[in-house]
Amino acid sequence: MINKNHPRYNSLVLREKIEKAYDDGYLGKTAMIAHGRGEAFDYLLGEETSYPAKRSMYVAVARLLLAKNPVISVNGNTVALAIDDIIELAENINAKIEINLFYRTEKRVEKIAKIFKEKGCNDILGTNDDEIEYINNIKSSRATASLKGIYTADVVLIPLEDGDRAELLSKAGKKTISIDLNPLSRTSKASDISIVDNIVRAIPFMNEIVKDLKMQTIDLLEKIIKDYSNEDNLKDSLDSFKIKGDIKWKL
Amino acid sequence: MINKNHPRYNSLVLREKIEKAYDDGYLGKTAMIAHGRGEAFDYLLGEETSYPAKRSMYVAVARLLLAKNPVISVNGNTVALAIDDIIELAENINAKIEINLFYRTEKRVEKIAKIFKEKGCNDILGTNDDEIEYINNIKSSRATASLKGIYTADVVLIPLEDGDRAELLSKAGKKTISIDLNPLSRTSKASDISIVDNIVRAIPFMNEIVKDLKMQTIDLLEKIIKDYSNEDNLKDSLDSFKIKGDIKWKL
Repeated sequence: MINKNHPRYNSLVLREKIEKAYDDGYLGKTAMIAHGRGEAFDYLLGEETSYPAKRSMYVAVARLLLAKNPVISVNGNTVALAIDDIIELAENINAKIEINLFYRTEKRVEKIAKIFKEKGCNDILGTNDDEIEYINNIKSSRATASLKGIYTADVVLIPLEDGDRAELLSKAGKKTISIDLNPLSRTSKASDISIVDNIVRAIPFMNEIVKDLKMQTIDLLEKIIKDYSNEDNLKDSLDSFKIKGDIKWKL
Repeated sequence: MINKNHPRYNSLVLREKIEKAYDDGYLGKTAMIAHGRGEAFDYLLGEETSYPAKRSMYVAVARLLLAKNPVISVNGNTVALAIDDIIELAENINAKIEINLFYRTEKRVEKIAKIFKEKGCNDILGTNDDEIEYINNIKSSRATASLKGIYTADVVLIPLEDGDRAELLSKAGKKTISIDLNPLSRTSKASDISIVDNIVRAIPFMNEIVKDLKMQTIDLLEKIIKDYSNEDNLKDSLDSFKIKGDIKWKL
């Protein structure tokens, strides 16, 4: 058990979830390294959701609410850190959930599908018995997608997505919404809406936004999207990093 | 095998070494997460050794050359990433090498000792049959040290050290030299000389510096140390982070 008084308590709780997911067999080693990268970026962000991140979340929710076939892509890290919030979001915006793993193995997919099943989610896509197609006919493990899901989706939410795949989805004409703590990552750069935040804060916040935007007119949702520049927002996100911390010299 | 044309090739090579060390059984899961944090900081540093890092390395080498009982503390990550350079440095400055693991198990210590043995290093400290004492009589796994090594050392080089332990060594009056990519970490803040750099660049660079400083007088080495302010250098290190990157919008 982690001591609640530890200066890094909140961060250590998340780390423990990631380690547990690895022990449970649905995370690869690289996924743990990726989590560490996220820790560092979040550290520099002050572990708080920035204003630009919030702004991009409003646009993301508007985009998801207007979508014809919105899909939330989930990998092991997302499941480990935010499964309940993801399920809530999928229900709130009427989106499908699709499993997409960087290092896909039947065993990992099965384990993740089982976790969703235990939460009452029986129609998860991207499972071992789902119909899988290659996007743009690219015969690569990065290009696989469920026929009913991402393959035919117009809007895809990609939390913690790999850069190759984010670029591929974008080139395939999908509107992509990333959640990635690195504003300079290929995923952040390739996405239409780049949310630079920790998913454990972002998804619950998006669930709050849904409640608000669901009450608004389509015209307003369209205006929110039209008024938004992801390039400007990414620059603002970058500016919200606090690499200049104060250095307290010695103990 | 990693494709040499991958935009993140160098970083992926190091990641592969870390994964291999985990598979070899001498790294914990947390060590992989820690590596990920390092990746992110190095990314922001432009994966280059900054001027302040170089300056602190000169002071570190001067300090090590003047030490009575200098010790290099090694953990799993250090061994995985830089064992050959560490061995060379220990020989160059006549320092002892001591194994100190955050999650110490007999098995991990044995494996690391064996790796050193295979490299011809038979007098590694901190092994399972070494005489271990508690620093300042603190009965904590963070406070253990080899009697002939860190326990009686005046100068300790601590690459990739845990914050608790770095603070403890500092409080025990050791002159500590850290190598840590996070200029805001407790380790960086607690150390007397904080080298903010990737160990895979820092240790070879220090080996070069040794050749130079070994030719100099004791007076000059003392002057190098006297003229140095770690507080100023840490601030300069912080300034060398390039959190403002350029964002190339879309593909």
